[in-house]
Formats: sequence, C-alpha cells, structure tokens
Amino acid sequence: MKIAAVDAFYLAVPDIRPIADGTQDTFLVRIRTDTGHEGWGESDASPLVSLACYCAPPSHANIVNLRDSLLGERLEDVADLHRIRARALRRALDIQHVHHAFSAADIALWDVLGKRLDEPVWRLLDGPAARPGPKRPYASSLFGATPEETRARAAASRAAGFDAAKLGWGPLGRDGADADQALVAAARDGLGADALLLVDAGWAWGTDVETALARAASFAEHGVGWLEEPLLPDAIEAYGALAARGPAVPIAAGESSGRLRDAEDFVANGGVRVLQIDAGRIGGITPAHAARGLAERAGISYVNHTFKSHLSLAAALHAFATVDRFELLEFAVGGSALAEELVSDPLTRAGDGTVSLPDRPGLGVTVDEQVVRRFLRPVSIAVAGEELAAALQAL
Amino acid sequence: MKIAAVDAFYLAVPDIRPIADGTQDTFLVRIRTDTGHEGWGESDASPLVSLACYCAPPSHANIVNLRDSLLGERLEDVADLHRIRARALRRALDIQHVHHAFSAADIALWDVLGKRLDEPVWRLLDGPAARPGPKRPYASSLFGATPEETRARAAASRAAGFDAAKLGWGPLGRDGADADQALVAAARDGLGADALLLVDAGWAWGTDVETALARAASFAEHGVGWLEEPLLPDAIEAYGALAARGPAVPIAAGESSGRLRDAEDFVANGGVRVLQIDAGRIGGITPAHAARGLAERAGISYVNHTFKSHLSLAAALHAFATVDRFELLEFAVGGSALAEELVSDPLTRAGDGTVSLPDRPGLGVTVDEQVVRRFLRPVSIAVAGEELAAALQAL
Repeated sequence: MKIAAVDAFYLAVPDIRPIADGTQDTFLVRIRTDTGHEGWGESDASPLVSLACYCAPPSHANIVNLRDSLLGERLEDVADLHRIRARALRRALDIQHVHHAFSAADIALWDVLGKRLDEPVWRLLDGPAARPGPKRPYASSLFGATPEETRARAAASRAAGFDAAKLGWGPLGRDGADADQALVAAARDGLGADALLLVDAGWAWGTDVETALARAASFAEHGVGWLEEPLLPDAIEAYGALAARGPAVPIAAGESSGRLRDAEDFVANGGVRVLQIDAGRIGGITPAHAARGLAERAGISYVNHTFKSHLSLAAALHAFATVDRFELLEFAVGGSALAEELVSDPLTRAGDGTVSLPDRPGLGVTVDEQVVRRFLRPVSIAVAGEELAAALQAL
Repeated sequence: MKIAAVDAFYLAVPDIRPIADGTQDTFLVRIRTDTGHEGWGESDASPLVSLACYCAPPSHANIVNLRDSLLGERLEDVADLHRIRARALRRALDIQHVHHAFSAADIALWDVLGKRLDEPVWRLLDGPAARPGPKRPYASSLFGATPEETRARAAASRAAGFDAAKLGWGPLGRDGADADQALVAAARDGLGADALLLVDAGWAWGTDVETALARAASFAEHGVGWLEEPLLPDAIEAYGALAARGPAVPIAAGESSGRLRDAEDFVANGGVRVLQIDAGRIGGITPAHAARGLAERAGISYVNHTFKSHLSLAAALHAFATVDRFELLEFAVGGSALAEELVSDPLTRAGDGTVSLPDRPGLGVTVDEQVVRRFLRPVSIAVAGEELAAALQAL
C-alpha cells in the first residue's frame, strides 16, 4: 500500500488556562493509504508549531515539510516504516521541532501498518515470541496547595482503586525543607502505608545538587519510590553529579527528551535510574522503543510519560508492553473532556487494577471523529498569498 | 526602556532550490522599544515554523508564544536581558523549536540594548577590559560536482583573497574513498599549498567510525585543517568513539546544537576538537557566548557556523571576538542576493585579509528595510478564524 493522504488536526478545549495541564489541546495526525487503511497518532506539542512542520515551504535540501516527504511512500512492512521515517527526518533535519511534530506521524504509521498486517503494534516491534503483560497504573496528580489538600488528593487516588500514585509540582520546592517534607508526609498519609508513592519535583531545585540530595534523604523516610525531575531537564551534568552522590531514592527523568540522543544522554551521563519517555515528544513509538532498549541494556527502569488522550497512552504502552520488568504505567486522571473522549475504547483497569493492551491490530484504540470535529480548531496558513494548511485538514 | 513591539519576518528568494544553500530564505526579528531604539536578529531556521513560535495560541503554562512573553518587558541592562530570556524560554519550554525561533530575538535584544547603552555587544558580554581582535576569515563553499569544478571553486576563493577555505557537501561521501580523495586533492590544488584547507563532510558517513577514521587519514595527506561533521549530528557516542581512536585531523562539529546542552554534549562526550556554534540556531548570542566558554575551559577551538547574512555574521562574531586564540571566522561567500544585501554595511576584509567588528553600538550592522520589503513573504495564520500573524509583521 501507499500513503495516500496525510492530515493534521489542531484540537483544543474552549478555554485554555495557564496551568500545567497538557490535556487542554492536542495535535493529531491521520494517515490514509490507497488500500483504505487509516492510522492515527498524537503529539504532546504545540499544535500550531507542529502543524507548520507539515506544510512549511522548503528552505533548502534539509528543510522540507513532513507531508511532502510522506505522501506517496510505499508502506508494506516494518522496514518500509523505518525507511519512510529516516527519509522524512533527514529531509527535515534542520527543523528543530521535527521530532515533536513527527511523533504523531510515527504513531500513525505504526497504527496503519498494524491494521494492514492485522497485527498489534507490540508484535511488529518485538516479534511473535514476545507477550505483552499487564501494567500497574499509577495515578498522576498535582500536590495540593497545603499538606491537608495533598492528603485528600492522595486519599482520593487510593479510593479510586489505585495502589500507586504520583504527586508533583504545586508548592514543592518553594518553602524549604520542612514544608517539602510535610507535603510528602501528607501524601504518604493519604495514600496509605502499603501503596507506592512517587514524587515529581518539577525542576524545583534547578542545578542545586545538594538540595536535591537532601530532599531525597528526607523523602526516603516516607518510602518514596522515586524522585522525579529534581533538576532542570538540560542539567545533565548536575544529574550526573547527583547520581554519583548516591541519592537515597532513585532519580527519575527523561520526559523532556525530544530526540533519542537526549534519552541516551540522561542514561549515559545523567545517571538516571528511571527513564521516562513521552512517545509524543521524542519522535513516536520508534525512538520510544529504542529508548526502552537503552534502559534494558543499562539495567535501569523505563516508564512512559503520558499526559494526553488514550491514543497517546496506547502508543506509549506498545513501546514497552512486552517487558515485564517495566511494571508501572503513568495513567493520567482528571484530564479534559477532549483527552477523556478522544478514543471511543479507552484502556481500562481490570479487576485486579492492572492495565493491558487490547488484542486488536494497530494501536488497538479508535479515534472518534465526532470528537475530533467537536474540538477542531481549523487552521489557515498562507505564505505570500498561497494557502498551505487547508489541504491537510480534511474531515 | 520597555519592549514596545516585536515583529517577525519571513524573507525568501523567488525560487528555492533543493540544495544545501541556507541563504535562500531567512527569519528576522525586530524589537522596538518605547525609547525609539530598534534591534534586529536572524535565525538559521525554517521561517514559517519559527514565526509560529511568536504567535501560537497558548497550550498550557509551558507553551506560551514568544511575542507575548517579550512585549512590555523592561530592558535596561544585561541582567534584564538574561531575565527576559529566561522567562520567555521557561514559558515556552515545551516547544521544541523555541531555541531556533528565539535565536533571532536574543540577537535583537543584544542589538537594541547595545544601542541603548551606546556599547558594542562584545563589551556588554566580556567587559571593558576585553578587546576584540581581528579574525582570519575562511571562505565557505560547496564542493563542485567534479574534481575539476571543485578545483575551480577553491581557486576562486584564493583569487578572491582568502588564504583559508572550507569546501563541503556535494558529492563527498557518495562515491567511495578514491572519489573523496580526488575531491579533496582538487580542492588543495585549487587553493594552493600554503592556504588553510578545511573539509565539511556533511554527515557523509552516518555512524560509521571506521570510514570516518580512514577518510581523516586520507585527507591528512592533503594537509586538511579539520574534518567537519563526518557523522550524524546526534551520533555523539560515535563521535566519542572516533575521538578515542585519534583521527589524523581534528574533528569539528556542533553547528546543529539547538540547546547549550547539545554543545556541552559535543565537547564532553563527542570529543570534538573544534566546536562550531550557530548563534542563529542555539538560541542566540547568549548561549553561543556560553558555548565559547565551554571551549575555552576544555582547551579546544571555537568557531562560528554562519550561512546567512552579515546580520548573523556580526552576531556570531560578537560572541567570540575577544578571544584571540579562536582566530578563524566562517565567512560565507556566494550566497543569495537576500543574504548579500540584507545589511547595508557588511563586514569587510581589511588589507591584510582579516575581518573585525565595526566600532559601533549594538551589533554594528544596519538592516536595510528596503531589502526586507523586497524579499518579504507576508504570512497569514488564522486559528479558528482568528488572525494571529498579521500583528507581528509591521513594516
């Protein structure tokens, strides 16, 4: 089959609020083939900037838009997918944003190829002998403004049936050691002694290794499973220095990775113990799967970062579903109606609380085009009077 | 003074050809203040994708467009510039393209601040005791399609008065060892035995360390000063392996750096001996100057990468003009009329062939608004019917 159509869609809720909630808008790519197959993918990225990468005029041999590079390409097997991917990225190599933008296309390519071959994506990635296992979802939410609010949020996650929860951002890191300790103690209290508690510091300590080390020791008293992003995403040398000091809880990081090299850098030079990858930012399932391989070879943990719809959650899970040792799954709760309703068959928790991939071809989830229409923000881009974006938003 | 207007312009020549000539289009930012001062900057990046970063609707707290973050900010001194910069990048942290896009704004901020304070940018960067020295320009051009064409191009550079020249891309790496050797031999022949010859391989050998090592040995016979980008820009581990093998000519790389961490990665883990930074891609003069500091501390060489107008060339030079040890300057020749004519007072070679910064405030070069108008491609971007780009292209 050949790629017959590449469409890109900007979706958003009516009112965007300036908070750290990434579910308020999204960027989708749909790929259709001449055989009538269709695949979908989602990026965790600025929709307008990403859409521009699909229709920008060429600048020279290394800045060619993604739609032009994808249209007409033959896609029959995994080798074709890798070839298409390498060519499109090579022709857009001087567009810094290309990995964010291409993530949705990569995911859509895996989806449509799986449907064509009647295989789930995980099997295309890991072969017929591999078996996807269930994951333990952790509820991901923000710290409350006070320890009391934090306790209530953690208790709510437990009441919703989660035996693992991550709390992050909010006031953590703002008011000193005692305040931070009180927040984490309240989270533990609300969640219960037997649950897995994870802490996301949201870059709270910049490049300050000493404070990160001290907080890790303090949080360890409350049995914290990992301390996530205590330092800025590009402070790899500080992460490395922190690792060398042997922090009392494992350090997690990597969601910011926009290229496979960034993930490699976190592992090789940042010394992280838990590699967190967003398939919607690093360039899709292909590099997420490769990053999982880095974690396997380094003997560290791998987990998804996902704060979008279950289209993104399914894509993220295919990349590491078959590795039983990577047992956790970030499972966003409380997202927008857009994120909650985009697929008509979201991943659900089984009776034992675990989450597994459905046994269906491709990604195994179905984008509801009525929901796409409901949240669509049509984009018009004209350069010197020539309309460029209209042709890639056909619904 | 306060930032009163931020405008962004997409310029291009009429016919874009699919070759590795980055002067066929460009992206400019002009910053005007309430005191009537004006600064200009240029990115080496996709103009449309970059322009979208200045007007994209917000997605959440970490995706806010650059124009909104810059407008109204107070700019009186260097501390203000760093504060403005950090805030704008922090609010756009989840836009992968932000460093490419912000490069032009960072350069414009330095330009306008220098004009306001009546100081050249280099003095704002390096203090009153520093002195900018002359640089030895090397003519940068592409290999010809044949050794004969290559010889003619190198000879033309020599005839134009350059005693240093870089040739790159074209057929290098395509037709095997003998063909590569013949190209480099022809370049040496055309340039003359006493001139400095530099070779840019344009990622020719991917991640193939052995071939890169063999070509370095082969090119060393022709007295090549450096071998640039023999491997892919994100193949840092391969660069490190190449460095560990002791290649026969120094390896140069780094122009792809889109964040300061990328430059740090090339130095710390890629083992490059010549760090090449494009101020129009890494995020402007600020991180280019920081990357220069990395090279100083590592005891390696630093040189600009510039393939745009002399607005970019001046910006690049300010970042390292005061370090005499970094003696070379990439000096693009044979670019488009757009690149050649954009500033009315380009940097010129003195009688001894060297290039120095003019003794004028700010960047020291003047953008010709008639040329901007001549090459302008007006951009219209509407999301859900709301026009976003018109307000930032006032001429």
